[in-house]
Amino acid sequence: MAESHTLRRERLRPAVAAVGADAALITTLVNVRYLTGLASSNAALLLPVEGPAVLATDSRYALAAERDCPDVQLLVARPVETALAELAVSQGLGRLAFEAQEMTVERHTALAATGGLALLLPLGRRVEDLRVVKDAGELALLGRACSITGWAFDNVVPHIRAGMTERELAVLIERTMVDAGAERPAFDTIVASGPNGAIPHHSPGDRPFEPGDMITIDCGARYDGYHADMTRTVVLGEPAGWQREIYDLVATAQWAGIQAAGDGAAVADVDAAARDLVDAAGYGEYFGHGLGHGVGLEIHEAPMVGYARPGRLADRVPITVEPGIYLPGKGGVRIEDTLVVRSGTGSAAARDLLTTTGTVTPGELLVLGPRA
Amino acid sequence: MAESHTLRRERLRPAVAAVGADAALITTLVNVRYLTGLASSNAALLLPVEGPAVLATDSRYALAAERDCPDVQLLVARPVETALAELAVSQGLGRLAFEAQEMTVERHTALAATGGLALLLPLGRRVEDLRVVKDAGELALLGRACSITGWAFDNVVPHIRAGMTERELAVLIERTMVDAGAERPAFDTIVASGPNGAIPHHSPGDRPFEPGDMITIDCGARYDGYHADMTRTVVLGEPAGWQREIYDLVATAQWAGIQAAGDGAAVADVDAAARDLVDAAGYGEYFGHGLGHGVGLEIHEAPMVGYARPGRLADRVPITVEPGIYLPGKGGVRIEDTLVVRSGTGSAAARDLLTTTGTVTPGELLVLGPRA
Repeated sequence: MAESHTLRRERLRPAVAAVGADAALITTLVNVRYLTGLASSNAALLLPVEGPAVLATDSRYALAAERDCPDVQLLVARPVETALAELAVSQGLGRLAFEAQEMTVERHTALAATGGLALLLPLGRRVEDLRVVKDAGELALLGRACSITGWAFDNVVPHIRAGMTERELAVLIERTMVDAGAERPAFDTIVASGPNGAIPHHSPGDRPFEPGDMITIDCGARYDGYHADMTRTVVLGEPAGWQREIYDLVATAQWAGIQAAGDGAAVADVDAAARDLVDAAGYGEYFGHGLGHGVGLEIHEAPMVGYARPGRLADRVPITVEPGIYLPGKGGVRIEDTLVVRSGTGSAAARDLLTTTGTVTPGELLVLGPRA
Repeated sequence: MAESHTLRRERLRPAVAAVGADAALITTLVNVRYLTGLASSNAALLLPVEGPAVLATDSRYALAAERDCPDVQLLVARPVETALAELAVSQGLGRLAFEAQEMTVERHTALAATGGLALLLPLGRRVEDLRVVKDAGELALLGRACSITGWAFDNVVPHIRAGMTERELAVLIERTMVDAGAERPAFDTIVASGPNGAIPHHSPGDRPFEPGDMITIDCGARYDGYHADMTRTVVLGEPAGWQREIYDLVATAQWAGIQAAGDGAAVADVDAAARDLVDAAGYGEYFGHGLGHGVGLEIHEAPMVGYARPGRLADRVPITVEPGIYLPGKGGVRIEDTLVVRSGTGSAAARDLLTTTGTVTPGELLVLGPRA
């Protein structure tokens, strides 16, 4: 059952009080969405330590706010944050907490000039902290985003052949996800073939696939605001020894990472579970990024799962596990799944793998026919 | 002929000196792209008043930077802006100008803690100012984005019929633009049918078109970073009197705005040329937004063309002209073109209309057969 937005706001109030503020001015749009339900490109929320919350947006979103946010007061005004600051002052809420990670210096200067405002205090990432553990409604949306992603991938795999370009494959995957119900791709699809596979964030170009290429496909659907993230690497024609070697190593490391991602595990240990295997095989210098990240209303959100990162996993925290090996000039492999940490037995079953594909079992390199 | 990025940076140096800084730290990504040629999600530029410019990015973009930006020094580091601030201090450039409209309070605090840094001064929108007048290379890219948009629109119009949903039409237009060479849609396509036409930024939904609907379609292609913006309104079946009345009024107002958009014209006068006609016909309260905006590396950029806005148009400034009338509960009309102001005779010919459509002549309401 999904939590009410009211309950989410109640959870935030103590954090607002803790920084010594009378109210919080929430301006990060996904945080406004999380706390109210309104998806808007121009909105802000005033949340006093005590008393009713006020959502401000402009006239373009007024109807949506009335429909989607029946449990907050609504203020239709521009600019939204100035209007809320003035309202706060008029209600005797002169000490405002703000989101310094989102607010620009220019807007902060304008806000600070609000007559009667006593103090602007950084709130920190308190809303982001609340967003780490998902409720059942969020997990359902995330699960739908991931199942669309896996379904689309499986439908597209049979079309991969020599002569197809990276861009053609990326476009095909994105369209298939949208046809399957995605509101849009969760991010720009990565298709990196042959030597381009050595570039983790390669932008798909006009390079046609050639026999012998490994092809790394990193894609995800967005569904009702929630983001899926999945990567598979396949090979066109019989793989060379080095290709099979790094594929098997990445697959083994990925599975070790997944196994380690249990309730209570330190994120640094989850990273190490995968990284130590890559290091031990002598490929450590070719795995230059963290093991994974949280996913939800943003494609990258807390917790970051990486070397020397702080924190522990908990029940209902979705993360990605995505080790990779990138050999400059030659190519690369990355395998990624989105999973949800679950409490329970502490066994390997205590997590839900959300991204599943029938065409590719991550543990086994899929060899595609190279015919054009 | 396109200007060199070196020349663009030379133009910026006096503005950096004028705010009393030793160097500018450019962190707005489109501004970094404008000044260096690098398209990246993580980059910053250090531009001293005198001496070589230094472009910082992370390892993901290092190869692209080497290839695309041969005329700047390259620094591969994370975080990019801290690395550049430390470099500036080491070179005796202790007074840094920064982009307060982009820099967050949190990042500003971190930057200000750089040892040896004397002062952080707001640069203002000096790069945005430079970007207003486009060079020939930019105009060629913008022209290509606009011609793709018009071509895609013309190809999609024959598919519009009763029973098709807003979302289906939006997806079809976006795919047709990409098939025609767009790197992506310039923004989320708007398709607003029937009563939804009263919402200027309606998000396309599952509403099927019905006979009698007016349908407003606001779309654009992005091509090599440059954004097209075009809106057409059509009607399904014979229009009612009120539909024809507001269509003809918007079309007349749009043409008046286009005619007024000459070299040297005050933007407020261009807005008034269209708005006065809408006001005189008694519909002023239903035209609630500005007449248009600049387009280029951003879909909305300077100059804003609206009531009481400052500034004048000039040769090689692309803008949109897009009046609309929105009748709550009934529907609406918007007609929009992207044009480039040209110097010359001062006649109506002194502008280039970039968005043209063969299926629809904006001056005449296109009546589509309502058959399902």
